[in-house]
Amino acid sequence: VISSLGEFELIERITAHLGERAPASLLIGIGDDAAAWAPTPGTITVATTDALVEGVHFDTTTTGWVDLGWKAMAENVSDVAAMGCRPRYALLALGLPPEREVAEIEDLYRGIAECAAAYGFALVGGDVVRAPTVVINVTLVGESLPVDGEKRPLLERSAARVGDVVAVTGPLGGSAAGLRLLTAAQSLEPRSPDENARAALCEAHRRPKPRVAAGLALIEAGLRCAIDVSDGLVADIGHICERSGVAVELAAEQVPIFPGATAVFGTEALDLALSGGEDYELVCAAPESTLARASDLLQQRGERRLIPIGVVVPAEGTQARVRVRLADGTFRPLDARGYQHFGNAP
Amino acid sequence: VISSLGEFELIERITAHLGERAPASLLIGIGDDAAAWAPTPGTITVATTDALVEGVHFDTTTTGWVDLGWKAMAENVSDVAAMGCRPRYALLALGLPPEREVAEIEDLYRGIAECAAAYGFALVGGDVVRAPTVVINVTLVGESLPVDGEKRPLLERSAARVGDVVAVTGPLGGSAAGLRLLTAAQSLEPRSPDENARAALCEAHRRPKPRVAAGLALIEAGLRCAIDVSDGLVADIGHICERSGVAVELAAEQVPIFPGATAVFGTEALDLALSGGEDYELVCAAPESTLARASDLLQQRGERRLIPIGVVVPAEGTQARVRVRLADGTFRPLDARGYQHFGNAP
Repeated sequence: VISSLGEFELIERITAHLGERAPASLLIGIGDDAAAWAPTPGTITVATTDALVEGVHFDTTTTGWVDLGWKAMAENVSDVAAMGCRPRYALLALGLPPEREVAEIEDLYRGIAECAAAYGFALVGGDVVRAPTVVINVTLVGESLPVDGEKRPLLERSAARVGDVVAVTGPLGGSAAGLRLLTAAQSLEPRSPDENARAALCEAHRRPKPRVAAGLALIEAGLRCAIDVSDGLVADIGHICERSGVAVELAAEQVPIFPGATAVFGTEALDLALSGGEDYELVCAAPESTLARASDLLQQRGERRLIPIGVVVPAEGTQARVRVRLADGTFRPLDARGYQHFGNAP
Repeated sequence: VISSLGEFELIERITAHLGERAPASLLIGIGDDAAAWAPTPGTITVATTDALVEGVHFDTTTTGWVDLGWKAMAENVSDVAAMGCRPRYALLALGLPPEREVAEIEDLYRGIAECAAAYGFALVGGDVVRAPTVVINVTLVGESLPVDGEKRPLLERSAARVGDVVAVTGPLGGSAAGLRLLTAAQSLEPRSPDENARAALCEAHRRPKPRVAAGLALIEAGLRCAIDVSDGLVADIGHICERSGVAVELAAEQVPIFPGATAVFGTEALDLALSGGEDYELVCAAPESTLARASDLLQQRGERRLIPIGVVVPAEGTQARVRVRLADGTFRPLDARGYQHFGNAP
């Protein structure tokens, strides 16, 4: 168990998993008062931080420790992708109960190292402390493409304009569907014919793939507004609406549903796509011609083309900021607030 | 209590305490997927992260919430100072039990804002999540002075050389003495003649002052090796020894003891100065002539001159890396490992 190691020995074990892939721009990694690097000249720095608490944000009965390491990083990589930037340097503050197994923590770092290798960033610093429950706090620093004149190469929530088309980089609801399958695993029917679909949904939950390359392509194509789907499509578009002072009308039948989700969950799959969260696709808004240019560039780079799902309209009084129009022309009732960490006000 | 607010309303309340002092280089603050800023051209970026857990690292019976906000930031500011850099951008991930009072959290942010104002950095992002106990995770990003040719303007643990003199920027043991007074508050004698000394010690614990200006002066004077006193003088010098492959011999009678600590704690004050921690003075190592130049520069800027406390000697086999020589020429027995967060190995 962890308490049988000293703090410094634990850090040594952990560091061993991180390999030697530090970028040349890194001057000082783990082991000094702070990490140090030379920023790439002419770029903008972005930084995001997220905390994951055991029992609140994850449950190791449905998420193994290696996957958890991947997911903790992926969540932040997605935030960097949603700015149109690439991840570069990560810091990890870890709270651990002394009675936990060292092997679990080593697995956590394996998953972190896999994500770092996949997305080309380095873990350069951190803190390991005693805590009553596992707390994983990741800070990720990224860099933009080089600044071009006055234009800043960032994807911002505040840049949606009335008349823009809203589009998404890929299918939604897979992660939420996978979580439901994993949670219900004990009570599931024996292996069914849709076993492949189930496996893909579980994989979407266990190993979400943030869209860094897509975010960079959006920037290059001239887009300036995007967010990642972390809280759920409707909730995240709500953040764009709030920051941009607009509303969005989505067409339910255009929302791409993760392959297999409908086969397993029927009509409920649309709910999962609209509200599930943790898909880590990007939602963007721009004039139609800009989106077409972006789709061409994405395709050219072997990425999926954008999928239009709605339009930006003026915000009007007390109406919901995000409305979902069904095939019959009526609007779907929904709660646009998404996941609230402390429960809702009365 | 916190659960009576939604997450977004809590964040709004919190943001209100942060004022409008963001630097011009900040492009995007709180409210997007990530914060974004333009790095100062020609500087190196440094980053550090620390986690504080209620009941492990702080106890609100001896530290009020405003002080706690200050201290959580100051600890990281000190790490940046120990690199010879200035703090610029902070991110805060906060874990909160829903039943805690909103006023406490607002006080926490007051303390954070005070520290940000005092040291000229801005809180630019974060995360607020539900947790079974209060967890405060700060990430602080700083910038070096401009790079001058090949020389990187950083203070590193690995840069001590045999023959260097070891010096400290100010008196030690104040914070540990203050904590002892605060912990024992109920059982203390009625107000004694040394009341002022006691108040100063408590203040040293409640509001430690990291030495950013001193760190910058050390860099400018040509120093390249320093660490901040956070774990305790002997433990922190131990980190320098390990990273530099050297040993250090301290002269006990030269170690500056915080004013009043001896009056209150007698000979035990030396223990507090050697092992107490959280003093946030800087310890540095350099040739004597470089230290003299640094002292002159510090004095010129209204800062205290350096206080020499020992010398760097070769590391020898199984001997302790840090030895404290007493006035009678004998060495003081001590545990050089400092605070270990998970207890010691058997």
